[in-house]
Amino acid sequence: MSANSVNIHASMNPSELDAADALGAYRRQFVIPEGVIYLDGNSLGPASYAALAALETAAKEEWAQGMIRSWNSAGWFNLPVSVGDKIAPIVGAEMGQVVACDTITVNLYKLLHAALALNPGRRKIVAEASSFPTDLYVAQGVTATLPDVTLALAEDGKAELTSLIDAETAVVLVNHVDYRTGALRNMQALTQQAQAAGALVIWDLSHSAGALDVALDACGVDFAVGCTYKYLNAGPGAPAFVYAAKRHHAHIKQPLTGWWGHARPFAFETGYDRADGVRAFLTGTQPVLSFRALSGALDIWEDVDLSQVRRKSLQLTQYFIERVKTECAAHDLVCITPEAPEQRGSQVSFQFEHAYEAIQALIDRGVIGDFRAPNVMRFGFTPLYLGFTDVAHAVAVLKEVLDTQAWKDPKYSIRTTVT
Amino acid sequence: MSANSVNIHASMNPSELDAADALGAYRRQFVIPEGVIYLDGNSLGPASYAALAALETAAKEEWAQGMIRSWNSAGWFNLPVSVGDKIAPIVGAEMGQVVACDTITVNLYKLLHAALALNPGRRKIVAEASSFPTDLYVAQGVTATLPDVTLALAEDGKAELTSLIDAETAVVLVNHVDYRTGALRNMQALTQQAQAAGALVIWDLSHSAGALDVALDACGVDFAVGCTYKYLNAGPGAPAFVYAAKRHHAHIKQPLTGWWGHARPFAFETGYDRADGVRAFLTGTQPVLSFRALSGALDIWEDVDLSQVRRKSLQLTQYFIERVKTECAAHDLVCITPEAPEQRGSQVSFQFEHAYEAIQALIDRGVIGDFRAPNVMRFGFTPLYLGFTDVAHAVAVLKEVLDTQAWKDPKYSIRTTVT
Repeated sequence: MSANSVNIHASMNPSELDAADALGAYRRQFVIPEGVIYLDGNSLGPASYAALAALETAAKEEWAQGMIRSWNSAGWFNLPVSVGDKIAPIVGAEMGQVVACDTITVNLYKLLHAALALNPGRRKIVAEASSFPTDLYVAQGVTATLPDVTLALAEDGKAELTSLIDAETAVVLVNHVDYRTGALRNMQALTQQAQAAGALVIWDLSHSAGALDVALDACGVDFAVGCTYKYLNAGPGAPAFVYAAKRHHAHIKQPLTGWWGHARPFAFETGYDRADGVRAFLTGTQPVLSFRALSGALDIWEDVDLSQVRRKSLQLTQYFIERVKTECAAHDLVCITPEAPEQRGSQVSFQFEHAYEAIQALIDRGVIGDFRAPNVMRFGFTPLYLGFTDVAHAVAVLKEVLDTQAWKDPKYSIRTTVT
Repeated sequence: MSANSVNIHASMNPSELDAADALGAYRRQFVIPEGVIYLDGNSLGPASYAALAALETAAKEEWAQGMIRSWNSAGWFNLPVSVGDKIAPIVGAEMGQVVACDTITVNLYKLLHAALALNPGRRKIVAEASSFPTDLYVAQGVTATLPDVTLALAEDGKAELTSLIDAETAVVLVNHVDYRTGALRNMQALTQQAQAAGALVIWDLSHSAGALDVALDACGVDFAVGCTYKYLNAGPGAPAFVYAAKRHHAHIKQPLTGWWGHARPFAFETGYDRADGVRAFLTGTQPVLSFRALSGALDIWEDVDLSQVRRKSLQLTQYFIERVKTECAAHDLVCITPEAPEQRGSQVSFQFEHAYEAIQALIDRGVIGDFRAPNVMRFGFTPLYLGFTDVAHAVAVLKEVLDTQAWKDPKYSIRTTVT
């Protein structure tokens, strides 16, 4: 796909583009506060009415009235599996290969161990230094636990990830979309290359699940983790998910063995006996209230056409890039997001010397993006609740902030813990 | 403390006991459905109005309106620490030694590794076969990860836990209150005995935190985990917690190293650098909605006198035991809960051949207890929302179920997944 095939140009009329938008009707399913253009759905998606309603039912009816009985009657115990089955089609997986549980950090720990156990003759983990840091920290945790395992990191300007994959490589851990630049990896090519070298691959889908048409089964992926509180809009810190290809199910061996991953959890047996299938990745009792918000949020996706999402996502990001180039040409912005559509996720990042202050000034004006150290302004584009008019307005506000140097106001340089 | 010192007898008038109850006013802070006597707070505590309100604020205001900004403005990122500081006084710990996070299973995995790392010359974990099974499964997961580590289990009728603690023992993992029998361990004596033998101790407080006056600091405990969805009433699957004595903080080494446990999480550094203090046990992004319900639920505890809780708990359990003995004497019930108050937690368990069916019949009549395989009827007594009239009524219903053999109705023998 060339940039041109996206067929969007800065000069196009945003209202006309919105009028022709097949996904425009989804917006009314979300709570978008008055005066806000939300370009941070890649960090925390907005609330949907479906998620809020499911959460309220879970709290006021299932918990408060049903009490302990809701473990059965409301399907609480099965949530990791039932929610996993809702996520599966969004990431291109047949049912029965996804469970929702725990956090990405904890799930990666399980998957790295599982991959190492499947590839016992090899002891090297290959990853990228540009990965979201928790991926690296957990890989370091695995090497600290298993002293014979090493971690080889591809660093920008030093080594390509693929050049590190060799006969010692047990598993390659890779981010589908780079959280900082928005660059998209070719899942099929990299999976094939790693597997051809005898390695397994774990994909981190944090910045791609719900943003584009992920095709885990079609690409022959071994394992994946993903986040539900970004493009899947499931609420702050919502549970993560694990994908394990069916061909590996008979051989799953992961060290966080807990009662929810037992074949007979309510027999209360003394010895661990792994549950069949992807349930073997479950650990302890999961946070039901957060799960029910997640479950509600996923109902919106049931009839969403992911190829339409991908098409509109590329249109929105391209429209943003081109309008910024046109309208903010006087300022030193460097786009670090690939402009070739096939190499781009659903976010756009600009380096700017005063990125932190500029983002605060934008947020103050209702345009919510975020800052990533050291100098990146990051904007996420989410087809279900954003339109082209939003993009045009966001660029106009950015232009104003830059033209007037509004970011110089001292109040925008106050650093808070989290951005 | 002798049984008599509890000073409760079957013949006492329940209304008079309720009238004299110093904790009686707390009941109105909880949602107890009409017609329900809830004797399952040891499995899932009821909703409080405070928890429901905090959850609603988190969902509709913080998430839906504040969106990404609430990570700062609503204190989301600090929840594991701020909630940990609310739990600390409930378990007899000075501030700064408790964080709320993840599940008990995952936290035990961290703690077992941390204890083994602190005691590198020893490679044996000692635990009890009667522990809640997930504790054993996770210990087995640790031995599977670290092949030189062994697990020695004390089994009923074979070996006492203390007899297994020897010069090879790195860590002793013990349940403060037995989930099946309700037996309470002597925390101070066992901690001293293990430490005198050079071992560390991890206490699982799942069935004691919020039920009695736990004294972690005073007993010199090394580590503990606990549950918040039982006696702390924080909602289904609410996050667990970790206690680590301050003297160990400088040496914490646990393998689930994630970005929330990093010294500078928002610097997005490539290398892991452990956060100071008990925050080193944090892993990935936590489920905020479940956390906010937990945080709200804990507000109730701020002015609760735990010695009053313990006193009333012993009165409620003793009243129940004595009235069952008196009123249900014609039936083959065997009390497996210690009758000596100092050996009893806050639940009472009876063996009965038709325990499963009898519990279903009780639930059908509004008296909610639970069943634990193979033949145990389990009843939890929670001083903040139960009174003596409730106990008397529950016993009357139990008597009716047994006298009329109501449990023989075939509908009560249908087995569901979860009990």
